[in-house]
Amino acid sequence: MDREGHLIERVRRRFPTAGDGLTIGMGDDAAVLHSSPGTEWVITTDAFLENVHFLRKIHPPKAVGYKALARAASDIAAMGARPRFFFLTVGIPEALAGAWVDGFLDGMARAARRFGLILAGGDTTKYPEVVASLTIVGEIDRGKAVLRSGAKPGDLLCVSGRLGEAELGLRLSQRKIHPRKRPVRLAKKHFYPEPRLALGAWIADHKYATSMIDTSDGLSTDLGHVCKASGTGAIVWAAKIPTVKIPPRLLRQVDVDPLNLALNGGDDYELLFTVPKKFSSRLPGRIDGVRLTVIGEITRAKKVLLLRADGKTVPLPSRGWDPFRKSG
Amino acid sequence: MDREGHLIERVRRRFPTAGDGLTIGMGDDAAVLHSSPGTEWVITTDAFLENVHFLRKIHPPKAVGYKALARAASDIAAMGARPRFFFLTVGIPEALAGAWVDGFLDGMARAARRFGLILAGGDTTKYPEVVASLTIVGEIDRGKAVLRSGAKPGDLLCVSGRLGEAELGLRLSQRKIHPRKRPVRLAKKHFYPEPRLALGAWIADHKYATSMIDTSDGLSTDLGHVCKASGTGAIVWAAKIPTVKIPPRLLRQVDVDPLNLALNGGDDYELLFTVPKKFSSRLPGRIDGVRLTVIGEITRAKKVLLLRADGKTVPLPSRGWDPFRKSG
Repeated sequence: MDREGHLIERVRRRFPTAGDGLTIGMGDDAAVLHSSPGTEWVITTDAFLENVHFLRKIHPPKAVGYKALARAASDIAAMGARPRFFFLTVGIPEALAGAWVDGFLDGMARAARRFGLILAGGDTTKYPEVVASLTIVGEIDRGKAVLRSGAKPGDLLCVSGRLGEAELGLRLSQRKIHPRKRPVRLAKKHFYPEPRLALGAWIADHKYATSMIDTSDGLSTDLGHVCKASGTGAIVWAAKIPTVKIPPRLLRQVDVDPLNLALNGGDDYELLFTVPKKFSSRLPGRIDGVRLTVIGEITRAKKVLLLRADGKTVPLPSRGWDPFRKSG
Repeated sequence: MDREGHLIERVRRRFPTAGDGLTIGMGDDAAVLHSSPGTEWVITTDAFLENVHFLRKIHPPKAVGYKALARAASDIAAMGARPRFFFLTVGIPEALAGAWVDGFLDGMARAARRFGLILAGGDTTKYPEVVASLTIVGEIDRGKAVLRSGAKPGDLLCVSGRLGEAELGLRLSQRKIHPRKRPVRLAKKHFYPEPRLALGAWIADHKYATSMIDTSDGLSTDLGHVCKASGTGAIVWAAKIPTVKIPPRLLRQVDVDPLNLALNGGDDYELLFTVPKKFSSRLPGRIDGVRLTVIGEITRAKKVLLLRADGKTVPLPSRGWDPFRKSG
C-alpha cells in the first residue's frame, strides 16, 4: 500500500463510514448521496488552519480535531438542520504523522459520534503546517431552514448559553493559567465547543425564529451579519447579556471585562436568533438544557446599538473576529 | 464592510451564484440544495496547496485558480456525473490579496463557466501560503454512478486522450523551456487540464463501463486503485498506450521517456475505464472529440503487469503521485 493509503486507512478506521442516505462512501473518486423525500441538503465548508484557528503550542491534537468538526457543525445548527455526512481535506507535516495525527483523529472521531456524522470522503496530503478543511452535509425538511435574512423590526433578539466563555478560555490558556492538557471548566468551551444542534433543530421544527446565526465571530460581528442580511438594525441591552462569571481569584490575574468578552469574543458557537414578539411568551427558559435569554430587539433604523447599563445608547461596531483585519 | 467581507464580495462577483436546485446560496451559514427526483448527489473534496500542487514561481495565478477547480471536477467526471455546485475554502497571504487573487479568481471563474458550476459557498482567511480546498457537488441519475470497484476479469481497459502530456508540460516549465505566461500546446495540459465531463456522462448514461477512475495520480497508480477496489489484476499493453509525441528539438533538451511519462506521470485527468469484451465492438473511436484507446485487459490474477514492446511481461508497480512518498 502507498503511504497516502496508510494514512487514509488510519482515518477510515476511526469513523463510521456507512449509513442511510450514503449510496457510495469513501474509497471512490467521489461519494454518492441520496436524500429522503421532502428534505433538502444543507452544506457548509470551513477551513481550520494552524496559527490562524489554532496554535500547536496551546491546543492539544484532540482539541484541534474536535474543534475543527464542531465549528463546521455549528453552521449546520445555525440553519436548524441535522448533521449527516462530512468530508475532510487535510495537509499534515510528516513529523506529525504519528501520535499527533492519532490524537487529532481521535478528537475528531469523538465529535463525529456526538454530532451523528458519517465520514463520506476526503483528501490527505503532506504539508509543512496542519491545514484542514471540513465540509459538512446536513439534512432538513424542505422549507424549514432558518436564514440570516428574515429578522423584522420589533422581533426580539435571543441568544443561547453564555457569551464570552470561549474568549476567556483562550486568554487563560495563552497565559498558561491552566495546564494545557486538562482545561478546566472555564477553558473547556474554547477547546471543546458545543454546537447547539438540538436547539437549532428545535427552533427550525417549531418555525419559531425569523432569523438565526451562530456566534462564531462574536456577538457584535454576527449581529451585524443578521442586520445586514435582513435590512434592519438592532439594539442590544447590555444589562441582559448573559456574560461570564469570573472568579475574583482569576480576575486578579487576567485583565478582562466580561461585557467586552461577550460583545466581541469569538468561538462561542451559541445561537443568536430573532423571534416575533407575539411568540415571546412561548419562549421556554431552556431547551435541551441550554438557557435562552432575550438580549435586545430588532429595529427599523439600520444601526446596531448598545443600551449600556448606565442608560446611554452607543453604537455597537463589529469588533469580533475578522481573519483579514490586522491585529494590534 | 469588514475586510473579509470585501474579499467575499470579490469572489461572489465573478461566479454564477444562483440556479436550479439551489434554494439558498452564498451569504448564509450554509447553502441549501434540493435534488431533482430520481437523482443522487455526487460529492468530492480536493485540496490544492502551494508548494505541493503548484509553485507560485511557475504557475500563473489564472492557471492555479483554473486547475484547482478542474482537478476536483475530474473526480465528478470519473463517476459519470454532471457538475452542479462548488464551495471554495481558501487561505491567502495578505501580500497576494490584490492582483494575484484577481488572477486566481478569474481562472477559477473561467473553469466554473466551462464546467457549468455555480458557487454555493465558501470560507476565506489570511494565511502565509495559498491553501485552497474545493468541494464539488454533482448530480447523476440514481444508480448510474460508475465506481472503481466493478472491473471483471476479461474486461478491456480503455483510456481517453493521451497519457504523459501533463507531466511533460511540468518538466518543460520547470526547465523554463517555455515562457511561463504563454504555455504552448505541449505544456497546456499541465496548466489548464480538461476534465472529461462529457465523456464521463456519456459512459454513465450508456451504462457502458464496469469501472472508471480519472488518471490524476498516473496510470500505474490509478490502475492499481481500480484493481484493488475490484479485486482483480490487469495487464497493460505498452505498444498500445497513446504516449506523447515529443518533437526531436525538445527531446534533445529534456531527457524523458514517453512510455515512462505515460505510465507514471500525474495530472492528465483522462478517464481510465473498463468495458466488457462483448461491448468492445461498439466502442466509438472518439466521444465528444476525445480519442478512446484500448490499452489492456483486466485479469483474475491480482497483479498489475506490463507487456513490453519487446514481448516481455514485467510487474507494473504504482509509481505515480503519492503526497506522502519521499521524493528522491
